[in-house]
Amino acid sequence: MATTTRTARTSPWRSASPIPVRAAADAQSERTTTTPRIPLALPSPSVPDGKFRPSAYAGEVVPFRTTSFREGHDRIGVHVRLFSPSGDESLHRLHPLNDGFDRWETAIAPLEEGVWRFRFEAFADDFATWEHAADVKIAAGVDVPVMREMGAQLFDRAAVDKSRPAAERRQLQNAAKTLRDPGASEEAVLEVVHDPALAAFFAARPLASLQTVGPDLELLVERERAGVGAWYEFFPRSEGARLLKDGTIKSGTFRSAVRRLPGVAAMGFDVLYLPPIHPIGRLNRKGRNNTLDPQPGDPGSPWAIGAEEGGHDTVHPDLGTLADFRAFVRAARAEGLEVALDFALQAAPDHPWVTAHPEWFTTLPDGSIAYAENPPKKYQDIYPINFDNDPDGIRNEALRVIRHWIAQGVKIFRVDNPHTKPLQFWEWLIATVSADHPDVVFLAEAFTRPAPLQGLALAGFQQSYTYFTWRNTKLELEEFLTGLARDTADYLRPNLFVNTPDILTEYLQFGGRPAYKIRAALAATGAPTYGVYAGYELFENVARPGSEENIDNEKYEYKLRDWADAEARGDSLAPYLTRLNEIRRQHPALGQLRNLSVHWSDDDAILVFSKRIPGELSPTGRSDTILVVANVDPHSVRQTMVHLDTRVWGVEPGEPFEVEDLVTGEQWTWSDHNFVKLDAFTEPVHILHVKESS
Amino acid sequence: MATTTRTARTSPWRSASPIPVRAAADAQSERTTTTPRIPLALPSPSVPDGKFRPSAYAGEVVPFRTTSFREGHDRIGVHVRLFSPSGDESLHRLHPLNDGFDRWETAIAPLEEGVWRFRFEAFADDFATWEHAADVKIAAGVDVPVMREMGAQLFDRAAVDKSRPAAERRQLQNAAKTLRDPGASEEAVLEVVHDPALAAFFAARPLASLQTVGPDLELLVERERAGVGAWYEFFPRSEGARLLKDGTIKSGTFRSAVRRLPGVAAMGFDVLYLPPIHPIGRLNRKGRNNTLDPQPGDPGSPWAIGAEEGGHDTVHPDLGTLADFRAFVRAARAEGLEVALDFALQAAPDHPWVTAHPEWFTTLPDGSIAYAENPPKKYQDIYPINFDNDPDGIRNEALRVIRHWIAQGVKIFRVDNPHTKPLQFWEWLIATVSADHPDVVFLAEAFTRPAPLQGLALAGFQQSYTYFTWRNTKLELEEFLTGLARDTADYLRPNLFVNTPDILTEYLQFGGRPAYKIRAALAATGAPTYGVYAGYELFENVARPGSEENIDNEKYEYKLRDWADAEARGDSLAPYLTRLNEIRRQHPALGQLRNLSVHWSDDDAILVFSKRIPGELSPTGRSDTILVVANVDPHSVRQTMVHLDTRVWGVEPGEPFEVEDLVTGEQWTWSDHNFVKLDAFTEPVHILHVKESS
Repeated sequence: MATTTRTARTSPWRSASPIPVRAAADAQSERTTTTPRIPLALPSPSVPDGKFRPSAYAGEVVPFRTTSFREGHDRIGVHVRLFSPSGDESLHRLHPLNDGFDRWETAIAPLEEGVWRFRFEAFADDFATWEHAADVKIAAGVDVPVMREMGAQLFDRAAVDKSRPAAERRQLQNAAKTLRDPGASEEAVLEVVHDPALAAFFAARPLASLQTVGPDLELLVERERAGVGAWYEFFPRSEGARLLKDGTIKSGTFRSAVRRLPGVAAMGFDVLYLPPIHPIGRLNRKGRNNTLDPQPGDPGSPWAIGAEEGGHDTVHPDLGTLADFRAFVRAARAEGLEVALDFALQAAPDHPWVTAHPEWFTTLPDGSIAYAENPPKKYQDIYPINFDNDPDGIRNEALRVIRHWIAQGVKIFRVDNPHTKPLQFWEWLIATVSADHPDVVFLAEAFTRPAPLQGLALAGFQQSYTYFTWRNTKLELEEFLTGLARDTADYLRPNLFVNTPDILTEYLQFGGRPAYKIRAALAATGAPTYGVYAGYELFENVARPGSEENIDNEKYEYKLRDWADAEARGDSLAPYLTRLNEIRRQHPALGQLRNLSVHWSDDDAILVFSKRIPGELSPTGRSDTILVVANVDPHSVRQTMVHLDTRVWGVEPGEPFEVEDLVTGEQWTWSDHNFVKLDAFTEPVHILHVKESS
Repeated sequence: MATTTRTARTSPWRSASPIPVRAAADAQSERTTTTPRIPLALPSPSVPDGKFRPSAYAGEVVPFRTTSFREGHDRIGVHVRLFSPSGDESLHRLHPLNDGFDRWETAIAPLEEGVWRFRFEAFADDFATWEHAADVKIAAGVDVPVMREMGAQLFDRAAVDKSRPAAERRQLQNAAKTLRDPGASEEAVLEVVHDPALAAFFAARPLASLQTVGPDLELLVERERAGVGAWYEFFPRSEGARLLKDGTIKSGTFRSAVRRLPGVAAMGFDVLYLPPIHPIGRLNRKGRNNTLDPQPGDPGSPWAIGAEEGGHDTVHPDLGTLADFRAFVRAARAEGLEVALDFALQAAPDHPWVTAHPEWFTTLPDGSIAYAENPPKKYQDIYPINFDNDPDGIRNEALRVIRHWIAQGVKIFRVDNPHTKPLQFWEWLIATVSADHPDVVFLAEAFTRPAPLQGLALAGFQQSYTYFTWRNTKLELEEFLTGLARDTADYLRPNLFVNTPDILTEYLQFGGRPAYKIRAALAATGAPTYGVYAGYELFENVARPGSEENIDNEKYEYKLRDWADAEARGDSLAPYLTRLNEIRRQHPALGQLRNLSVHWSDDDAILVFSKRIPGELSPTGRSDTILVVANVDPHSVRQTMVHLDTRVWGVEPGEPFEVEDLVTGEQWTWSDHNFVKLDAFTEPVHILHVKESS
């Protein structure tokens, strides 16, 4: 097999440890045991149960790890062999973690989208075994002639390898000659043993025996937007809605909402997510504040989908036509915004499905159709789907609807309450859609228990809402962010929405403006995907009494907001959000999920974490390190010592380094212990760029 | 399929949750997705990577667990279906752990040896769904007629099930009648909803829909001795060895060692393990205290196997003949002791293999054979095997040796340093031996890193030495014992040897007699298998300077010990060991591995744990609870409050219960908080029997 040398520029991956591709030579012949000659266990990326594929997004730095060891003291080496979807083959050396658990690791950022194959290969590293023994024994004067001859034989073996450059082969021959020269001094021999040039030859092309090949594994690599992006949510009916003279409100339309696009784009968002845009049921329509007696002009909840005008494949007439929607999508794209639609698989009582397909619902013994409920609570404006009477019918209809919107230019779907539909259904739908459109992204609004939340991610959802909104203290956030980066990253990608039309947490209700700043900064830096629902920048923080959502909720009415006026008055968080998104775009460390390390402070409200990407894995080719120091108590000024493991970015403990606050522009010289004072009422969060000398 | 009711007496299992066997009815038809209709994930017993089988020993209480959930609010049920090796089929109901993670569990003790199959089955529990909704909605006056009719239809469905007893079917029909009776009061209807008799019918025979069947899994059940036993180790050459007039020592023999068997049996041990009994090499033989200059009469290390008289299939002439050995094995069996042999796959330089099969060793460039070494240290009395020149030859020879000793009546092998031989070799050897002799037990002396230690257990070793000897503090022991019971029990069984010829820890060297008592009590109660090497009962605690093993080590010389004299002087731990083994035999809770729960004390040296077996899983049919409170500081008297989660044995917090100290016979009334004073110099450990009222 040809040996090629690659550069990051032409490869479908970035790697810190690529080595020339070589055939997995004489791998063990017939295997009569489950254990191969050199054990290889617990490969990762991997997922629980192993029934699904692990996944990553293009450019994501993925740790490839395996357990490997052999009997006795001889040295081994471990490679991972990658096959890109288009067939590019590459080999990467793993390094031992030396954690006592025989784990080996290397980090690789796959760039090409599709299904990658990978496998681990272990081998006896004959040079390393000899080098270690020779080093110890020659120095101790033990077995010197034998060690010299063994080394010479190793160099002979390597020198006949025609894949090695001629100059290298000559150097290997000379080394063998020295070892065999009876006149060579002990110093000359030890020089050969310790020669870094020879060691480099064997690092690049190990002298391997007992070649062991692990099983073929798969990694699904999805497009970058599946893993990285800043989301903004607005109701198009509110954008451009107008208060009429008679006190009623005229709905905004796709055409009027287009005028808001530059504002959203200027804040630096990547994805614009729209709640359902379909006709809204009239039967049992909800009034303002979720009341059962709507007044004339109340528009109803967009999630009560379907009316005589149509269902899930139809645009609400108040918003315009399908052509208007397509124009909106185009206009958004022109602003650098990708439109995401809501996919809420349920029906208002007057949805066309109800008469055309009553078998898609549950009919009660009295002949009525069952409402959505959480006994004894009822949701009278919505019928849930019954997936068991006609599973194929529902599957095909859902597929038809998704394909309809794909045809209109939509490639991202935010799925409403997926945990109230069969997991099996989602696995089928996402796999079927992905087969034709691998660039489609589904976000699961799975506000449910961990098992179904993770089950949906395993079954195919590219992104998941998480428990972020309910993780507010330092300890909670440390555990939460670390869990996302370490425990579930092989299959679950978080989308850290700071608020939604359904969620206005007590932290935001009672934390004042500092709370809004803190949560936005944590979301924007804590994970590569985060989101903001419109109104957050206006600090809308009054809840409907007894609920965890906004009063006068936009779900049931139009909201007239004057963005420009708020900004002019200095009453808007938009400039801060804009700066956060700028920082995200300028710092590739923030585009990664798995690179988060928690550091320490002496204060129980000062959270400290860093994110880093090394140069050889970064799209810029330069390393990038961000250090976040956040006062998560929105009510106070806190001061504390901050303690850093600076080795994360290659700085020895005690050594100084420069940091720049990317929000304020201030610069400091820091080391591993630093004094910090954070005033929640001015700048509660330092987002520091660590300036690396290298 | 026939429905049979079983009792523990005739079943190949004990279970708390057996239900009549029913066919896994109309399980889902063609599966087009990996996810079944009702998700079933993370089944256990299971092992890392899933490449090997989990295992248990006959009578071991095994938790069967799976994750299962469904969309929405409807109730589900989960069963595990077991197929014993001889084909007995049984069904057991799991209960939800209600831990927020959708885990379900039931405990079953398989009794029949061999490979069991099991699978989890989930179903929509239609009765439970209705019962919950009816309970809430009828009380709230919501949908009452519909709920009544839905209930009536459920009871109709159940009543036509001919597998239900006639009386049950009549009661179900009556319930349906009541629900449909317009004259029935709300009270009468709610009585039906809450009728415990009806609930019991559906618990035994659930009204199931959406039947989901998980994959077939396997559990290897080995004989009880693979998991439970008290081991004793002695060198037969020392038992009956005599000091001659000329100052030399005449070796003990199998015949003289027979005289020690009643003493070992009287202490209550189950297994007698002998270090290698083969001819010992003369070339490079080690002298006393591991010296390189043996004196005439020095017997050498039994692990330097092989001399002109023979190798691994031969008995050392000093010990007697093969017939003598067989007589020794028979005599041991008559005393209730099973003999375990050492299997040390290595050769002295004068082992017959060396000349017959030089390819089984590593020949160096100078023509010599490589010694065992840890560079620059050398072990000149031992040649390690090279497993790669002639793997089949080595495999077949090892198999021949093992089969030879099986033919002499040996079914337990303690394997010396298995981690210095290929893991692949052990997997093959153990599987091959087990195919013909499933009752053979291999104990791995794997004093190595966690990955190879666990790898050997996964590859087939029935038992493993562990890090027990190096876990001495309260915190270390809590973590260690919990780890054995929780994390690795599906594949790794510990054998807690308190000492070995190679290990005399600093704790024992410097802890005095209390240390010996403490460690023996912890080993005997902390796991169902533990071991003692002869001399422990004489408190032999002087180490060779700079080493962690006894001075004048028995590995290199004969030891003359006067057991009776020591006991007569009160200088022996034998009575305490005897009591420990009595307690182990009388208390089935101590025959279990996975039932250990750590409790708490306010003192950093008072360790508290309990072990319990419920009656329906116990061989006696009665529950049994042991509570161990140990002062692990051998130098002091400690007093503290001990805090117990008494719910482990079914006692509500604050309720009193009786305990008896099984060592001293003292009795106390305890509750969840108790004062304890433990004097290391008298009785450092309470082994308490909790007297349950039930």
